[in-house]
Amino acid sequence: MKRDRLFGSIEAGGTKFTCAVGEDPFRMVAQKTFPTTTPSETLGRVIEFFHSVEEEFGKIEAFGICSFGPVDLRHGSPTYGCITSTPKKGWEQTPIVQNLEAEFRVPIGFDTDVNGAALGERRWGAGQGKDTILYITVGTGIGGGALVNGQPIHGLVHPEMGHVRIPHDHAKDPFPGSCPYHGDCLEGLASGAALNARWGKPASALESGHPAWDLVAEYLGFGIVNYILTLSPEVVILGGGVMKASHLFNRIRRKVTTLLNQYVKSPMVEEKIETYIVPPALGDWAGIAGGFELALRACTEGSNLHR
Amino acid sequence: MKRDRLFGSIEAGGTKFTCAVGEDPFRMVAQKTFPTTTPSETLGRVIEFFHSVEEEFGKIEAFGICSFGPVDLRHGSPTYGCITSTPKKGWEQTPIVQNLEAEFRVPIGFDTDVNGAALGERRWGAGQGKDTILYITVGTGIGGGALVNGQPIHGLVHPEMGHVRIPHDHAKDPFPGSCPYHGDCLEGLASGAALNARWGKPASALESGHPAWDLVAEYLGFGIVNYILTLSPEVVILGGGVMKASHLFNRIRRKVTTLLNQYVKSPMVEEKIETYIVPPALGDWAGIAGGFELALRACTEGSNLHR
Repeated sequence: MKRDRLFGSIEAGGTKFTCAVGEDPFRMVAQKTFPTTTPSETLGRVIEFFHSVEEEFGKIEAFGICSFGPVDLRHGSPTYGCITSTPKKGWEQTPIVQNLEAEFRVPIGFDTDVNGAALGERRWGAGQGKDTILYITVGTGIGGGALVNGQPIHGLVHPEMGHVRIPHDHAKDPFPGSCPYHGDCLEGLASGAALNARWGKPASALESGHPAWDLVAEYLGFGIVNYILTLSPEVVILGGGVMKASHLFNRIRRKVTTLLNQYVKSPMVEEKIETYIVPPALGDWAGIAGGFELALRACTEGSNLHR
Repeated sequence: MKRDRLFGSIEAGGTKFTCAVGEDPFRMVAQKTFPTTTPSETLGRVIEFFHSVEEEFGKIEAFGICSFGPVDLRHGSPTYGCITSTPKKGWEQTPIVQNLEAEFRVPIGFDTDVNGAALGERRWGAGQGKDTILYITVGTGIGGGALVNGQPIHGLVHPEMGHVRIPHDHAKDPFPGSCPYHGDCLEGLASGAALNARWGKPASALESGHPAWDLVAEYLGFGIVNYILTLSPEVVILGGGVMKASHLFNRIRRKVTTLLNQYVKSPMVEEKIETYIVPPALGDWAGIAGGFELALRACTEGSNLHR
């Protein structure tokens, strides 16, 4: 019997690290989640987990890491593979790829959490068969990743997307926004943190008839319309904690249709918007799936670290 | 002596068609511009021009076309290579690539005017050595093209970018915007047509101290900040008639710096913004250069029509 290949996937978040081993996200042999504490403690546990899995199941061929950011994705940069200027205490300049590579000496793929989720959804989820994919997470903050011609956008630094400026009618909504950089950018108006600051309770505690939702749908609609006009994605995948309020999808779809006003001539936007703006098919596993995809790609392309 | 290779480049605009033949934009052997009249008359003149050049200089190896749009860029689509739903009378569903291929039977590359300009600037202009490039034209309308990992974004349809929504302070500027689809989207507030509608004269007639310019810089600043956050380009190239007002560059750079508010950690944005937001190095020839690049790529990849 053919032995399965083994890849390691890590979704590195500001709250928790999820690690998994298997041939792909549907054939995992082990999985574990750790709280994000200090870098040395957290990465120590991650490494210990993967060693214990190797003892039981054999050598892991490659790793893929989807990380909270900002991260350095520039090949050849001295800080490639690091979490860089994060406000998360203690994690500035953490060489996450280097730590793992020193230990396991196999190819390691590395990208942002949201680019990773887009990669995972493209291979196994809502983005199958598509090359231009937008993935937005609406959680405590708002972040976005995208694939163009099947490849993640890196560019100058990687896109973050959450801080775009959108129309804000101060008469209708006098809330000044919660973003420490920009006040009423999209993240400052429509993120989980903004909802909490605006209404005094988390999104999960706001009933579906609450006036907050029409405002959130309007703001997210503005942001998504701008992303659509800029990237022309073939599918828009919306994940994250705030999007667990599933009634928000139809509100956003209606808003996007109204705002585009028949300008984008495509049946996906004009007739099939319920298949165009969608939740992640992999749910909370999109990032872990992205780690598997990054590991697969690292096997083909060689280690990202030494390219 | 080695004979030069010959490529044909076409920049297809709503007002004029520019055609050129040569090895590259710096070694052209012939060039001609025609007014855009009917499709059959205009394309007839284009074909006649290239035939006359071939008689004198020899066979053209491949063509590249950068076209006004919207165009169909989806390989395999029955209308690939066509100008599609353009408001320009008589030009709807014009199979521009098919017409040229039927006549010359060589590989033909095809893209939007703005993706073409980005490709031209990457090969010979302000985008050299960069893989993620944004090109925005601010003329009668506002349009944008972009390269990610060196490849143009196509996606669902191609991006247009000009119609993004931005903050608009109605108290400061009560102009409702000139866009027939969206009113006060970016194009509706900051395009040449908007300036004309707002101030009763074209951009070229507005002196540099006119209050119009601060508003235009603010609106373009909002748009460019949103593009930067979404695409993370390594360079932002601003062309088109309105950008001939060269004082506009520094106004826009200041606005972008202020709006980003140190959120994007890169020396390009924080220290070297005068080399980050720039005019096209090729000036009005960026599109023709893009046609040469598309022709070169078509030679390598084979005809776009039959891929």
